[in-house]
Amino acid sequence: MLDGRAAHGHDGGVPHIDLPELPGIVGLLVQYPQTAGPLNGLADALLRGPSSLSPVERETIATFVSARNECTFCAETHGAVARHLHTSAAAAGSVDEVVEKGAAAEVGPKLQALLAIAEKVRLDGRSVSAADVERARAAGADDKAIHDTVLISAAFCMFNRYVDGLATLTPQRPEDYARHAKSLAEGGYLQER
Amino acid sequence: MLDGRAAHGHDGGVPHIDLPELPGIVGLLVQYPQTAGPLNGLADALLRGPSSLSPVERETIATFVSARNECTFCAETHGAVARHLHTSAAAAGSVDEVVEKGAAAEVGPKLQALLAIAEKVRLDGRSVSAADVERARAAGADDKAIHDTVLISAAFCMFNRYVDGLATLTPQRPEDYARHAKSLAEGGYLQER
Repeated sequence: MLDGRAAHGHDGGVPHIDLPELPGIVGLLVQYPQTAGPLNGLADALLRGPSSLSPVERETIATFVSARNECTFCAETHGAVARHLHTSAAAAGSVDEVVEKGAAAEVGPKLQALLAIAEKVRLDGRSVSAADVERARAAGADDKAIHDTVLISAAFCMFNRYVDGLATLTPQRPEDYARHAKSLAEGGYLQER
Repeated sequence: MLDGRAAHGHDGGVPHIDLPELPGIVGLLVQYPQTAGPLNGLADALLRGPSSLSPVERETIATFVSARNECTFCAETHGAVARHLHTSAAAAGSVDEVVEKGAAAEVGPKLQALLAIAEKVRLDGRSVSAADVERARAAGADDKAIHDTVLISAAFCMFNRYVDGLATLTPQRPEDYARHAKSLAEGGYLQER
């Protein structure tokens, strides 16, 4: 997916509107500050705020949804954040396994059940069943974990469409994501840019 | 769609998590205030903030996307807001025409072109083409109108999934939507509840 080419729009062209030459959502947040405030606030509350899910569990769900929506910028960014937050290289490898296998990845029954809910929300919120939620509860998920999983999946269905619907720039070099991800992993989503 | 039955969850059951007995997103916003702040801020900036699109144009796009996603609560709520904001009964009827016909509704070439973009974003952000954007520009849409259309469609892909993914209560009486819509139309999305 990342092959060392220079940054360009998703179809090899330019963004659909005038934006500063910054990757993905970053250019949109700089150019449109009135919506950037609540968008950054939502990302921070959802991915870093108080929750029964760890930041790395939440970033993994965000990565999975973005990968299934084939939003390269979001999937690469949040995948790099999740890997950075993991404390061991072995654990960091689970991010790639989740991207590949989804709810079948060997990440324990709670995260498996939550990934299954996230995938249903991604496709159609109405498809989440009481049985899906019961499975997550039986594996240790509480109301907040179920709430956060649904809203993370829903929110990345927004972020992915915002980034790709305006054909923003997608960096092609892994090191561009690693630098940005280190900043997000260590400082969260409310930093001055 | 609205047939006078009492409020209940989307499958005739109860919400997937404990919530106050309030319809749709309202119960979620009360129960989860940390994400409610940015969600309300986003709705207000997007639907009421400065834009080259009028509030009624933006509410109409939100209604259309929610109807296509078959989210009854959001489609009925924002449809009622859009009808309330229209200054004549004849104009208010155009909301129903948009829900029925989408970009083929007789709402003028600019809103038609923006509805076509909104529908593409709803399905897959990557499907918006340079030609779609050129058509909107030729009909008078500027960068801000194109930006707002993409983000409104993307944001309602989130709100719809949040409301339906947790099986929140869907009122069945039109008057429940009319009352809530009057408050939103007149006071916006940042009011104390």
